Amino acid sequence: MNIQAAIDALTEKGIDIDLNPASVKSKSRDFFWYSPVLKDRIDHVVADFVATPTSEAQVIEVLATCYAHDVPVTTRGTGTGNYGQAMPLAGGCVLHLHKMNAVKDIQPGRVVVEPGCLLKDLDAACNETGQEIRMYSSTWATATIGGFIAGGSGGVGSVRWGSLRDPGNIIRLRVVTMEETPRVLEITGDDLHRVSHAYGTNGIITEIEIPLAAAYDWVGIFVAFDSYEAALDYSYDLASCDGLLLKLVTVFEAPIAKDYFQRVAPHVEASDALVALMVAPHSMPGWETFTEATEGRVIYRSDDNDWAKTPGHVFEYGWNHTTLRALKVDPSITYLQIAYGTEDPVALAKKMRDLLSPEILQHNEITRQNGKVAVGGLTLVKFTSEERLDEIIALHEANGAMNFNPHRYTLEEGGRQSVDQRQLDFKREADPKGLLNPGKMIAWDDPNWSYDRMYAWPGLQPKTAAE
Amino acid sequence: MNIQAAIDALTEKGIDIDLNPASVKSKSRDFFWYSPVLKDRIDHVVADFVATPTSEAQVIEVLATCYAHDVPVTTRGTGTGNYGQAMPLAGGCVLHLHKMNAVKDIQPGRVVVEPGCLLKDLDAACNETGQEIRMYSSTWATATIGGFIAGGSGGVGSVRWGSLRDPGNIIRLRVVTMEETPRVLEITGDDLHRVSHAYGTNGIITEIEIPLAAAYDWVGIFVAFDSYEAALDYSYDLASCDGLLLKLVTVFEAPIAKDYFQRVAPHVEASDALVALMVAPHSMPGWETFTEATEGRVIYRSDDNDWAKTPGHVFEYGWNHTTLRALKVDPSITYLQIAYGTEDPVALAKKMRDLLSPEILQHNEITRQNGKVAVGGLTLVKFTSEERLDEIIALHEANGAMNFNPHRYTLEEGGRQSVDQRQLDFKREADPKGLLNPGKMIAWDDPNWSYDRMYAWPGLQPKTAAE
Repeated sequence: MNIQAAIDALTEKGIDIDLNPASVKSKSRDFFWYSPVLKDRIDHVVADFVATPTSEAQVIEVLATCYAHDVPVTTRGTGTGNYGQAMPLAGGCVLHLHKMNAVKDIQPGRVVVEPGCLLKDLDAACNETGQEIRMYSSTWATATIGGFIAGGSGGVGSVRWGSLRDPGNIIRLRVVTMEETPRVLEITGDDLHRVSHAYGTNGIITEIEIPLAAAYDWVGIFVAFDSYEAALDYSYDLASCDGLLLKLVTVFEAPIAKDYFQRVAPHVEASDALVALMVAPHSMPGWETFTEATEGRVIYRSDDNDWAKTPGHVFEYGWNHTTLRALKVDPSITYLQIAYGTEDPVALAKKMRDLLSPEILQHNEITRQNGKVAVGGLTLVKFTSEERLDEIIALHEANGAMNFNPHRYTLEEGGRQSVDQRQLDFKREADPKGLLNPGKMIAWDDPNWSYDRMYAWPGLQPKTAAE
Repeated sequence: MNIQAAIDALTEKGIDIDLNPASVKSKSRDFFWYSPVLKDRIDHVVADFVATPTSEAQVIEVLATCYAHDVPVTTRGTGTGNYGQAMPLAGGCVLHLHKMNAVKDIQPGRVVVEPGCLLKDLDAACNETGQEIRMYSSTWATATIGGFIAGGSGGVGSVRWGSLRDPGNIIRLRVVTMEETPRVLEITGDDLHRVSHAYGTNGIITEIEIPLAAAYDWVGIFVAFDSYEAALDYSYDLASCDGLLLKLVTVFEAPIAKDYFQRVAPHVEASDALVALMVAPHSMPGWETFTEATEGRVIYRSDDNDWAKTPGHVFEYGWNHTTLRALKVDPSITYLQIAYGTEDPVALAKKMRDLLSPEILQHNEITRQNGKVAVGGLTLVKFTSEERLDEIIALHEANGAMNFNPHRYTLEEGGRQSVDQRQLDFKREADPKGLLNPGKMIAWDDPNWSYDRMYAWPGLQPKTAAE
């Protein structure tokens, strides 16, 4: 690794290089600190420099130069991922793509965009044609589309469209490889699985084509219930109404709303379970009919309310924002990412709640998965120790609830705990020196890893080195 | 019943009254003749006159006048229903709504339209705003929106949006009652179930508000398979891809395509099972990826083909058009309407096929139902006798496949064979004399009917009377 030679060469080529220690430190961080485990392991990590290309040609320059000098490259958008996706575990170069943010083409049903475009800005551009993106993270206002594609799996909109990995939710990715002479590849079809949700470990996305949906002035809604069970039943049944156009269906066990949602708190009791919804305006009459037949109490709708302080976007209470809001009130809170599946997810979620509440509070996201309504859990955990956290996760798995561990920084541990052969094969081809986001793919470094404990990448920057 | 007095009064009021025998006869018919059973029972039925109002005010005049003179009123659009929905069993007045066809208002996500508007014309008007209707019958080119709402249950688009009865698929209906002084009611919410799919037995729809979706230039596709099983598996799995925007997924057992689809026949073998699809253009790459991983052979796509004679709209091979095409080739063909449900519909459809093919050929429509992918059967039947038809239906029911009998002219027998209390209660309120589409609601005429055999309405026009 010859950092200085790379910096000199890149500066020579006119690439924007940031060496300011405070700035480099801040651009070397993402939202890993949602996890006390990750905070312990990678809080100290810092890059040597940040390169900010403004074009694909400059991305190619950065990759070729870093390849020549054996400098690791970790790519980031705005760093809102919370699995440590954008943390430069071995230092080196952080490739910051926020200036590659052009919306290049909008057609009926599709958009072509550069990776650094904020989800919010992309939506605004699409709105001008009466369209919007199908799904986004709750960090819509601050996150980039590239980060969402490379580091996310779904979000607001998944209750209608499923996950990013489902056929049809990504149309095309343009990717630059990390080789002596980087290649530019157009990735479509099944090959999309090689590079989407790969944390930039096997190529750098420089252009994205995704489908669009009709834009609507979504109505944000909160419905309160006396019990978690009633709230979950309502949410699952509502999401099962194929004729109602919904963008968000989220369930919060009590007392999440009262304790952690400041502007909602005056309108609920501590015992209230809460449901957050986004409903298309023309589905509101059907939603009203459906809701009136339940015990739900509509406490807020964005199109008609008298709240002195409006709660803002309802989706900014769901997905990862739930954890964020809880953390701000109680720093000991962390979370899990659980899939209760599609067979009988409501019963399984209720069972896990019965076993673990209030140490764990249910926060459920309702999605679609393989043509069925699914229930996920981004459940809030009152953290006590890593041992107890592991016990809790094991208890979920013993009961048939799949766990995507957000307290791990590798792709495999945050995923299905198995080698993704397509991603690995593509990394061999696209990143032969293993310089792209090193330490994030166990299959590359230790193919026989047993997953019996947390993986600790040997190449991780030592804590003392960064101090 | 004082027909002449009613005719005189309506003529006096300036209502368009048709008395020409040939014309009255043709306007007294719908597509009941799909069923040899219905053909035997109601082929002779004919109205005394046809009234064609041009406004809601004229509808009110017709209803008030017919009420005063005890004249039955059977409402029709263009008469493409095939349960005998528009057949005037007791003669009297046929209320023809085709001149009430205005598209009154189009907003994002919704349209307000008069009942006589053709589905095709409604779509064309909505297309001007980049929108289209969510679902329609395969008789899109000739059927009216009012007839679809009052006599249909779903169709093209149900693979995405479910059935017309699902919350959100009808927003509002404006209905005129049959009383001394007809009332005009705005029906919304749960009350919609009173009058939608009621064959005009308990009120006359004069205005309809339904939701819209984004319009796309749908790609029509035919995919051939070596086996029915492979075709059905493909279709179910494809429809389970939440990220692919589909409007039609239809399966045809062999040799339907070869024997009954004239323009498709040169491109398939007699042993080929066929799948018909409508896919949004921006979902085509995902569809291609999905399809390439199967044994399906794409024999036609409307956006890229070299067929000398194009097959026209692909949806005009599905839903009721399948039966229509088969009937044209083999007049002994009729059909069933079967619901294989959502729990394990693929296995049940395969089982029924194993039991009954080739006397019955599977024609399956894939839809969504309560948040799950469902399989329906508009299966083709080689008709031999009514006894055998009843046996076949009983065999389906014995195996757990629900039957909506299209060989019956009553709401109950074509539905769930039970009293719909909401429709009955509303008829008591809105049609106290029982003059609206008489003979179609068993609950009105014979509440204790046992459903052990075909219901024969005592008021049915005798065959001799009409000769």
